[in-house]
Amino acid sequence: MTNECIISLSDMKNINALIITIGDELLIGQVIDTNSAWIAQELNKIGVWVSRRVAIGDVYDDIWQTLDASVESDAEIILITGGLGPTNDDITKPLLCKYFGGKMLMHEPTLAHVSYLFEHIFKRQMPLLDVNRKQAEVPDVCKVLKNDIGTAPGMLFEKNGKIFISMPGVPQEMKFIVENSVLPLIKERFHLPYIGFKTLTTAGIGESALADKIKDFENNLPKHIKLAYLPNHGFVRLRLTTQGEKSEVENDLENYFERLKAAVKEFMAIEEDISFEILLGRLLKEKNKTVSTAESCTGGYIAHLITSIAGSSDYFMGSVVSYDNSIKENVLGVQQSTIEKDGAVSEATAREMVKGVLQIMQTDYAVAVSGIMGPGGGSSEKPVGTVWMAVGNKKRTETKMMKFRFDRKRNIELTAINALHFLCTFVKNDN
Amino acid sequence: MTNECIISLSDMKNINALIITIGDELLIGQVIDTNSAWIAQELNKIGVWVSRRVAIGDVYDDIWQTLDASVESDAEIILITGGLGPTNDDITKPLLCKYFGGKMLMHEPTLAHVSYLFEHIFKRQMPLLDVNRKQAEVPDVCKVLKNDIGTAPGMLFEKNGKIFISMPGVPQEMKFIVENSVLPLIKERFHLPYIGFKTLTTAGIGESALADKIKDFENNLPKHIKLAYLPNHGFVRLRLTTQGEKSEVENDLENYFERLKAAVKEFMAIEEDISFEILLGRLLKEKNKTVSTAESCTGGYIAHLITSIAGSSDYFMGSVVSYDNSIKENVLGVQQSTIEKDGAVSEATAREMVKGVLQIMQTDYAVAVSGIMGPGGGSSEKPVGTVWMAVGNKKRTETKMMKFRFDRKRNIELTAINALHFLCTFVKNDN
Repeated sequence: MTNECIISLSDMKNINALIITIGDELLIGQVIDTNSAWIAQELNKIGVWVSRRVAIGDVYDDIWQTLDASVESDAEIILITGGLGPTNDDITKPLLCKYFGGKMLMHEPTLAHVSYLFEHIFKRQMPLLDVNRKQAEVPDVCKVLKNDIGTAPGMLFEKNGKIFISMPGVPQEMKFIVENSVLPLIKERFHLPYIGFKTLTTAGIGESALADKIKDFENNLPKHIKLAYLPNHGFVRLRLTTQGEKSEVENDLENYFERLKAAVKEFMAIEEDISFEILLGRLLKEKNKTVSTAESCTGGYIAHLITSIAGSSDYFMGSVVSYDNSIKENVLGVQQSTIEKDGAVSEATAREMVKGVLQIMQTDYAVAVSGIMGPGGGSSEKPVGTVWMAVGNKKRTETKMMKFRFDRKRNIELTAINALHFLCTFVKNDN
Repeated sequence: MTNECIISLSDMKNINALIITIGDELLIGQVIDTNSAWIAQELNKIGVWVSRRVAIGDVYDDIWQTLDASVESDAEIILITGGLGPTNDDITKPLLCKYFGGKMLMHEPTLAHVSYLFEHIFKRQMPLLDVNRKQAEVPDVCKVLKNDIGTAPGMLFEKNGKIFISMPGVPQEMKFIVENSVLPLIKERFHLPYIGFKTLTTAGIGESALADKIKDFENNLPKHIKLAYLPNHGFVRLRLTTQGEKSEVENDLENYFERLKAAVKEFMAIEEDISFEILLGRLLKEKNKTVSTAESCTGGYIAHLITSIAGSSDYFMGSVVSYDNSIKENVLGVQQSTIEKDGAVSEATAREMVKGVLQIMQTDYAVAVSGIMGPGGGSSEKPVGTVWMAVGNKKRTETKMMKFRFDRKRNIELTAINALHFLCTFVKNDN
């Protein structure tokens, strides 16, 4: 297949979206914007690119001006979140009403829904106030998009051939409206290209070295396939994206992904776009085995990652967080002499922790970590960031020392993710 | 003191900042932008408002156009993050060089630093490549801002009386440059107003009902004090902000904060701007007491929150994550008959879990949770979101049932934070 028969990125008209988030809470840094990332992912899956994201405060002129700029932009779809709460500082709805030339009126189905929520769901915790009733008022020029789980509905406006959709900023309400109204509506209205993704995760190699290693592969990629480097927590994910007519580009994506896998073989950690905790779950379910954790420095974070996956109760039995040395000794059975001789952060201690938790929880596999996350607790011999980890089953144990050089939060995250990687590799290779 | 003698928000010239984040990874939703929130918080503390945040991709025209728009904007300070990596898709540095009319040249101190990092810190894990050496090249029209912990330095440009600062997107590198160069530089250059904040957290009341309850207080606030509602995880934080000359506005802030505290007295959870895990640490340190957790449905997340605080090893001994019922029985000593009769998610089980972990970990206090986080595992009697929690010491135990109605992730977070609130209240009231 030659490149000529491929509809390339530039030949096909892209559908662009612009995301506007409204609310002082985003500008003062009180809230981290997770909505935009989620929306972008969902749009990408159906072939819509987000070309720009803008966050502005609850300031009349700023909102108006941003709407003006988006009317002039290259985006066909403008998604607006936030600014629809019941309190006085939320000025977005009346502004949208004026901007699109409408009048406010009570939307009876929404009012019925809001009343139902207050009567049957919120119950006596929250009385229905006038401000809540007002949430059922909408501009008469919009199409109302149902919000089954909250009081503020979504609203669809049109101008200059573009669609403007306003949604509340509460993540689960925004998600409900996107999934149930926005995505179906976009798919119906626009002729969208097929977008294909394939992602893998590498371990033990930095972004620059990886780029150097696969530069030939990258240089030989056809125009309709793009390679992206996505470094995350010390691992680098590589993603191939293709766009065009499905029948024409799908095979190419498969082929080049196989070549990419071959090119990074010795650094391969995960062959698809899933996290280590999901991979662990799959491996354990396949083998019908169980796991437990013994955590010191990660304080339960590994167990938290494992149990963030629905259905993890099938294979995760539990954890001992042995933060204090007395717990390492009394609950996990680490020898007092081991801690005295080698220290709590040592290969021997990690080894005995794994052994202990395997025994207590009666699991097939276990992982243990002991380290110094900072800012305090470091020494010249064992500086902050030093971690010993051990994985094992009843027959054998493997250990590993790692050093991280970040702040407490990131050291904890890196330790947990590397421990999961270590555990996955052990489980995968165990026969 | 009358309002006239106060320099109000509108009288005093505000210094505005604009944050531009560059990188496709933000627009495809692969990365959640935590940088902007952190930068906004740091700027707010010194009296700079962020009036707008814009995220754009690695697209030449988009970057150029956004720079043009920021030259025309009301912002005096433009902070740019991202787009400075070693790979080919990072086009920001040459673009900035052209935009500000400079030529690229090797910055020798940066090259020396990059070489040092590769030789002494990264060591053999990563060889020094040409692409890395290139990171030490900077436009000759910029002032270099040192990045001690990474390879890409910060760069300061000036145009039309505004300052433009470009930084790498890696959070800890960006933070290093902001703390060590950007904030001192802004404080030196601009006459900044004093900004005062006071924040409290309420529990057990929704945003609308709270707004209704304190509407008189809110209506009587002087112009230079603003009230913000910050709902988070089912708690509502209230923040008063004042701005002006320190000597003039500081007393007012104190006075109005005392009035606010009185107005929300029965719903008060935390009287200052700290999290429940920090409050818990303070209470336990004051009392010189210890704590442990027994977690089923939260899977270690409560322990993780507690240990996210530096110094928590002073009071946190450890945790048993008893995900499987066998662990509840065999490790925590919950009676088999209790689980058979009342179920794992029950008052009796939560009570025995607390008792068990207090015994095993020999702590003064403990908290236990058992619930159904979803999506599976619910029943008509105990639907998804049902949680039993217990807190106690050697003498007595208190229990509580809660119901959450969100997805798994959020149910886990809400359970953990409410359990910490329950624990804090118990510890505070215990004499």
